[in-house]
Amino acid sequence: MGKIILSLSMSLDGFVAGTNISPQLPMGENGMRLHDWIFGGKTNADVRIIEELMNDSGAVIIGRHTYDVAIDGGWSGSSPFPMPAIIISTTVPGKLVGGFRFMRGIEGALALAKEIAGEKNIWVMGGANTAQQFINAGLIDEMQINLAPILLGKGIKLFGNTDHLTEFERTRTIETPAATHIKYKVKRK
Amino acid sequence: MGKIILSLSMSLDGFVAGTNISPQLPMGENGMRLHDWIFGGKTNADVRIIEELMNDSGAVIIGRHTYDVAIDGGWSGSSPFPMPAIIISTTVPGKLVGGFRFMRGIEGALALAKEIAGEKNIWVMGGANTAQQFINAGLIDEMQINLAPILLGKGIKLFGNTDHLTEFERTRTIETPAATHIKYKVKRK
Repeated sequence: MGKIILSLSMSLDGFVAGTNISPQLPMGENGMRLHDWIFGGKTNADVRIIEELMNDSGAVIIGRHTYDVAIDGGWSGSSPFPMPAIIISTTVPGKLVGGFRFMRGIEGALALAKEIAGEKNIWVMGGANTAQQFINAGLIDEMQINLAPILLGKGIKLFGNTDHLTEFERTRTIETPAATHIKYKVKRK
Repeated sequence: MGKIILSLSMSLDGFVAGTNISPQLPMGENGMRLHDWIFGGKTNADVRIIEELMNDSGAVIIGRHTYDVAIDGGWSGSSPFPMPAIIISTTVPGKLVGGFRFMRGIEGALALAKEIAGEKNIWVMGGANTAQQFINAGLIDEMQINLAPILLGKGIKLFGNTDHLTEFERTRTIETPAATHIKYKVKRK
């Protein structure tokens, strides 16, 4: 079985999105600055990080709120992911987009992701609430923080509702102008 | 004139200390894990980072709360700093420890620090409240984050009351087992 990997872009003050998130502004005010390394400010090293994640992951898990604001309606009605995407949701939206499956709760999503991914990794994309649920349940094997060199000042905090000490071993750091990509392995007790 | 440098140890979830801070437990519960790179887990590279800060700084600025819980009463009645330390405080404590000066507000503290430091840098040590005041006032030139590979889960957040976008250029990253030391230069508009 592959690893369960959380990969998120975060500001130095811990935000994964700005304020006033909407389908028109999925990352919120100034939030796209966190994704400079994926878009405007990308270098070859940044591109390789995305490719690695895409190539090594057999399934991606996404929270319903993130799906609603960032994915549903965008991408011209098709999935932007090269692997099946599983949305954590208690309901299934009326309009279905190809490449997406809807599962109740993190356990259900994870069970389906394991079945689909096989030997490949499972990528937990977020948002913050989904990431926190996976961390609190002790389900993450690795975490990649793509740390943007900004203080966003306000927005959605990645961490804030994790409630216990989690220890990591840093396994890799890749520096690019728009991000410090730090990979961590969770230390199991 | 030297630079104004903020240097702080922070967990991945943005804490600079744990909960239940007291003179007996100045870093709070599990908080000493943030300073692993200074104490138990230090390597030569970590030591060089401390030496650089000590050698290059002509004055250090510290908030009154940090002074009360972490410095006053500890260190056998003498200052642990090789340079003059300026405490931001509206009152002067009854018992005076050598090496400390007490100034009202960040402006007063900074004016005295500049006078004392001359061509050397001014190190803003923290805590979180003092750091935030300096950031919000746009007074920081450089910031060094010593990022510990843990999620602390709860405690004192470094950032949370900074209220505007601040952009940095990353100027250096030094990796050690107990921390990722990232140095940033503030981008002026």
